[in-house]
Amino acid sequence: MKTGKASIKFEKPPCIIGAASVVGKKEGDGPLGACFDQVEEDDKFGMDSWEMAESECQKRTFLAAVQDAQLADGRKPDFLFAGDLLNQLSASSFGLLDFQIPLLGLYGACSTMGEAMGMAAAFVAGGMADTAAAIASSHFAGAQKQFRFPLEYGNQRPYAATWTVTGSGSVIIASHPSVARCSEKLRPYAYITGVTIGKIVDYGVKDSTNMGAVMAPAAADTILQHLQDMGRRAQDYDKIITGDLGTVGQTILIDLLSKNGVDISGNHMDCGIEIYDAQSQDTHAGGSGCGCSAAVLCGHVLKKLLVGQWEKVLFVPTGALFSPVSFNEGQNIPGIAHAVVLEAAQ
Amino acid sequence: MKTGKASIKFEKPPCIIGAASVVGKKEGDGPLGACFDQVEEDDKFGMDSWEMAESECQKRTFLAAVQDAQLADGRKPDFLFAGDLLNQLSASSFGLLDFQIPLLGLYGACSTMGEAMGMAAAFVAGGMADTAAAIASSHFAGAQKQFRFPLEYGNQRPYAATWTVTGSGSVIIASHPSVARCSEKLRPYAYITGVTIGKIVDYGVKDSTNMGAVMAPAAADTILQHLQDMGRRAQDYDKIITGDLGTVGQTILIDLLSKNGVDISGNHMDCGIEIYDAQSQDTHAGGSGCGCSAAVLCGHVLKKLLVGQWEKVLFVPTGALFSPVSFNEGQNIPGIAHAVVLEAAQ
Repeated sequence: MKTGKASIKFEKPPCIIGAASVVGKKEGDGPLGACFDQVEEDDKFGMDSWEMAESECQKRTFLAAVQDAQLADGRKPDFLFAGDLLNQLSASSFGLLDFQIPLLGLYGACSTMGEAMGMAAAFVAGGMADTAAAIASSHFAGAQKQFRFPLEYGNQRPYAATWTVTGSGSVIIASHPSVARCSEKLRPYAYITGVTIGKIVDYGVKDSTNMGAVMAPAAADTILQHLQDMGRRAQDYDKIITGDLGTVGQTILIDLLSKNGVDISGNHMDCGIEIYDAQSQDTHAGGSGCGCSAAVLCGHVLKKLLVGQWEKVLFVPTGALFSPVSFNEGQNIPGIAHAVVLEAAQ
Repeated sequence: MKTGKASIKFEKPPCIIGAASVVGKKEGDGPLGACFDQVEEDDKFGMDSWEMAESECQKRTFLAAVQDAQLADGRKPDFLFAGDLLNQLSASSFGLLDFQIPLLGLYGACSTMGEAMGMAAAFVAGGMADTAAAIASSHFAGAQKQFRFPLEYGNQRPYAATWTVTGSGSVIIASHPSVARCSEKLRPYAYITGVTIGKIVDYGVKDSTNMGAVMAPAAADTILQHLQDMGRRAQDYDKIITGDLGTVGQTILIDLLSKNGVDISGNHMDCGIEIYDAQSQDTHAGGSGCGCSAAVLCGHVLKKLLVGQWEKVLFVPTGALFSPVSFNEGQNIPGIAHAVVLEAAQ
């Protein structure tokens, strides 16, 4: 079943039978605003802190995804694969506590949705579960406070900086559409036919306000590995969709791949570039955070696959393994990216 | 293959073909000191910071585990499942960077070794990989600085507090002993015949210096779920081995299980209690940290299984999902525990 050093091709591809996205006001005001299932006007989601707001966002997203999947007999997914940007994954711990589902906590920075989907798909494809959920989230204010400066400080942001998305996305993955979905709409959003797990890539970047430069080499590495392992060309995909490289990272990625003989200039899309109108929303290089790729996947990408507008896409969430502690101690910021192959149902 | 809501019984159980443990001086001075593969006298492992010391510890542990597995043709494991206690898993990121192996970063607090082994075993059992490695680590000074007080502050520690282990453990898991091991000693340390993935359990504990009280209910929940899913009794195991409950947590666990009709008083063992001599080493309730259960497993438990002294054990690393931020914002500290069934080769 294993096709290479980093890639898995699923003999019995699992499918996505439910999906949901919940975002904040700024994301709701952006170009994709109408795609998301819920747009919350209150940045605190009715809670007392940014952290609990993110937990509440995850909770709503997961509930909506389960509802969308219409699992038979009120069943819950067997396992939850979840992660976020907060230290100790506290958004996930408190957001998912009430559901009492076996939880596998993941940290892949902003690549977490790819990691979660890859592992959930592997569990289902390997016969370990009938259904599994993947979820990831981020919150602008919680992330700024933890990684950079409290908002009250009012620091200026360079043009290479990205804006952390307040939002969450969740998918419900099943071994077969009929296993779990009790409704008549048996067409799943998409099949997950393969994954490529990324390696840590360190290009020596030391600029904590330029995450695009950190993540682009990791995205390039994973995409090249994927194409090699699977014996495919970039043109085999309608879209190659990175997580949150932003405009700076996009340029680097296209350049790096081009030097390796791979041209994705015609079919590359970055969730971070799509989610905001950088000019009018003052988001500089684009959106970022685990919630960026997760929400754009669930709100936008999966719907394109569902209606058959796209047949095959490579979803590549990208993460900067940025630790303020190691950074302040002089270390580089390495990156990682995981790729998930999504194919429309025939 | 799935036997219950949280448990997986592997039809083709993967096996542990390599293992290694590296610890600090205090752990080397403890009752299990002679069991560990390496004892490093320098708390900084020759590095400039506590964080990089933990990375170096992981690096040495992984190298030793790979060497122990004697993989054919200098092969590396297909996938790495790794985690630690530092924010953004920075010990793993920098410790494992050089190996350039596809990495799945995990966060389960001190339950991480159980999570990593469960997922690595599932990948191998599901045919996603021939070999996979699990690794987890912690460092006393790095953990104190991040979670409580810098060492220079010299705070007093209550008797319910545990001492974070400086150390790391790593196992190499394979689909079959002969697949990867090129040596003549084809007897693996043990087979992983099943896992039970834990749920988040919140008993309302708000004492950040009593992790035993946080984790014991999670351990009880996972053990009860495991026995129910698998249709087993506690006595079916030579040992039920929790991660780092310490003496306070042990009492609570035995009590909670007893109230549910399960008696483990005769076959319970806690890695945190075993690793130090609490009286002479001033460690109060015991040892803790991801590295505690990981190092005791690899240095001590697996060797008992290898020589057949124990035939079947349930390894249950326990984690306190303690976030200083959410704690300071008034939240409880929830816990989680994952169980792995280890059986000696026949």
